Amino acid sequence: MSRVLIIGAGGVGRVVTHKCAQVTEVFSEIWLASRTLSKCDQIASEIDSTTIQTAQVDADNVPELVELIKRVEPQLVINVALPYQDLTIMDACLETGVHYLDTANYEPPDEAKFEYKWQWAYQQRFQAAGLTALLGSGFDPGVTNVFIAYALKHHFDRIHQVDILDCNAGDHGYPFATNFNPEINIREVTANGRFYENGQWVETRPMEISRVFDFPQIGPRKMFLLYHEEMESLTKHIPVERMRFWMTFGESYLKHLEVIQNLGLDSIQPIEIQGQQIVPLQFLKALLPDPATLGPRTKGKTNIGCIIKGEMAGQPVSRYIYNVCDHQACYRETRAQGVSYTTGVPAMIGAKMILQGKWRKPGVWNMEQYDPDPFMADLNRYGLPWQDQEFDIDIDTLPVDE
Amino acid sequence: MSRVLIIGAGGVGRVVTHKCAQVTEVFSEIWLASRTLSKCDQIASEIDSTTIQTAQVDADNVPELVELIKRVEPQLVINVALPYQDLTIMDACLETGVHYLDTANYEPPDEAKFEYKWQWAYQQRFQAAGLTALLGSGFDPGVTNVFIAYALKHHFDRIHQVDILDCNAGDHGYPFATNFNPEINIREVTANGRFYENGQWVETRPMEISRVFDFPQIGPRKMFLLYHEEMESLTKHIPVERMRFWMTFGESYLKHLEVIQNLGLDSIQPIEIQGQQIVPLQFLKALLPDPATLGPRTKGKTNIGCIIKGEMAGQPVSRYIYNVCDHQACYRETRAQGVSYTTGVPAMIGAKMILQGKWRKPGVWNMEQYDPDPFMADLNRYGLPWQDQEFDIDIDTLPVDE
Repeated sequence: MSRVLIIGAGGVGRVVTHKCAQVTEVFSEIWLASRTLSKCDQIASEIDSTTIQTAQVDADNVPELVELIKRVEPQLVINVALPYQDLTIMDACLETGVHYLDTANYEPPDEAKFEYKWQWAYQQRFQAAGLTALLGSGFDPGVTNVFIAYALKHHFDRIHQVDILDCNAGDHGYPFATNFNPEINIREVTANGRFYENGQWVETRPMEISRVFDFPQIGPRKMFLLYHEEMESLTKHIPVERMRFWMTFGESYLKHLEVIQNLGLDSIQPIEIQGQQIVPLQFLKALLPDPATLGPRTKGKTNIGCIIKGEMAGQPVSRYIYNVCDHQACYRETRAQGVSYTTGVPAMIGAKMILQGKWRKPGVWNMEQYDPDPFMADLNRYGLPWQDQEFDIDIDTLPVDE
Repeated sequence: MSRVLIIGAGGVGRVVTHKCAQVTEVFSEIWLASRTLSKCDQIASEIDSTTIQTAQVDADNVPELVELIKRVEPQLVINVALPYQDLTIMDACLETGVHYLDTANYEPPDEAKFEYKWQWAYQQRFQAAGLTALLGSGFDPGVTNVFIAYALKHHFDRIHQVDILDCNAGDHGYPFATNFNPEINIREVTANGRFYENGQWVETRPMEISRVFDFPQIGPRKMFLLYHEEMESLTKHIPVERMRFWMTFGESYLKHLEVIQNLGLDSIQPIEIQGQQIVPLQFLKALLPDPATLGPRTKGKTNIGCIIKGEMAGQPVSRYIYNVCDHQACYRETRAQGVSYTTGVPAMIGAKMILQGKWRKPGVWNMEQYDPDPFMADLNRYGLPWQDQEFDIDIDTLPVDE
């Protein structure tokens, strides 16, 4: 029986709160805090089975966080606020002696670079405090890391190659909208690609490498090689020859992004209009549909998984482990669509692992460093069932274009 | 020896002023007025051969216009301000007894519809006052009307079909920019197409009909059927079976326009941001390169002309009359690129026709209603030389796509 404090009341916070409230044998008391109290109260009002308590907090402010944690006295803080706030929340957990979990690694607000170094630097302090920090317990990073650890445990003596494939085939009916903060979306797509090969990182131009892959339950979609943050920890913890990450984007989505860049609408440098300084990216956000309104409109499925090649007892093995999620089913259950759902459910399961003591060691940990089996079992139980099958397609032979 | 008052100091006003100053035997005294006096002074400072006098005026304000015209005492007002201001300037000309010329017909600011009815309604008043109003003395409308009148005078007993082809192959090196007010640009492209056939107007969806035409001195370009204002007067004054207007647009230009619409950046409904009401279209204008900066960057050519089919002495005849203009040559001469140049030169020539008495009848007139020969001769003399050749391509058999 444990008390948990969830920080962040966006789409993911909504899903985490809904899902924790479904597992009262572990999460006997749930607090939800964010900068905007009314968002917390709205989510709490939707959940009738459990009493959710709410609070207001500025997650950039360590003393405020410490005061809230001291008042609530949780065993664990689930951080689903912004990636910029990981370090302040980790600081507050250390100061109050509380376990920590997040879904995306820290990014300095002015650097546009996701790296684990900032959070790995907390290793000694969490060890010394006897506290667990579980990093990246969303889907990717998160479930994809666990899929690979599971494959290594059950199917492989050695893994040679990993391809992580992320397909969101949801259709919200708008010509253009982003599922989350468009700034992060645009940064991800416009950055150089990068993959790991023979101990080195190989850079590609943005969107340089593509393949058309036939996603189970979705169909053929064009996917592009990107850098994605889970590869940093995975290549450190699991020896592989090559690891790549692929994400699907539709023609229309890419066209809109290209024009947004060409017009300078993604700029964070203010321009003057009507005597006011306005940041173009803020203006774009104001023009675009509110991501929170996409939930009820979004139809279709997500498919995220890993194609893993290697060997077992001297024989070549190739597996494909993936989850398919239906946007509308997610919305019916939690009033959030699939992108929030696939991140929020693993956050709840990671929290459950820590509170049940299955994944609890002093220090800062990535998902692949724990036993995957209990986590994999809970994915099937709590809404993210997975397939694990033999699969012998060579991605490099797939067509580049639809 | 005549005094002329030019109202409007944008790109076209710049060209008109430069060109009038080259013809001192007709324009012995030149005044240039606009809302922003410094723009007039800048243009005047570039021209050393003639003394240009400048003034400030709000062209929406009839009493202000009347006061200025009374002070300057011109024989003619050349209106190259905004189309919204045609009627106030006509009113002021009537009140002061001065001839009138413009390059684009009046558009009510709230209707987004170019129609001649507003200005044709001044017919009686200009007749009664013994004054000439010459409408649409730019390139299209303007020179295209004269090309057709010239063809009818010299090559045809009867015209059956007219296709007006407008190609701007200029490249300013920006991913997206508009040569003039982007609002008018966007309206033109996003409106339904319309052409004249057998006494009726036939509507098309926006950009529904396209053909790839090999423009002389430019090469193959994809052109789209649009409605364009000169067809309203031409079909009234010259009997034809069919008349169409085509304009070229590049893939990239169309892609940017489509996204601008999808994002709602072309909207004139304000949205709230940082507590301010901001009109998206105004924000777009602030993001885009200033059209005035395109001049020195723009390379390439324009080709605007008319393909005319009909009969002469019982034999079928097909002619193509067109002008090719080089953006950089225009800029060297007038510090304005081809789109301003091709509009400004015909405005000067139309003014010359009126002041020399060659095109001077009391009333409101369109270009095709006068003798084309002296105007055509001046086009060759003042920078817009034309070709007039046999031409037997059938546009309808051309490919739809590049």
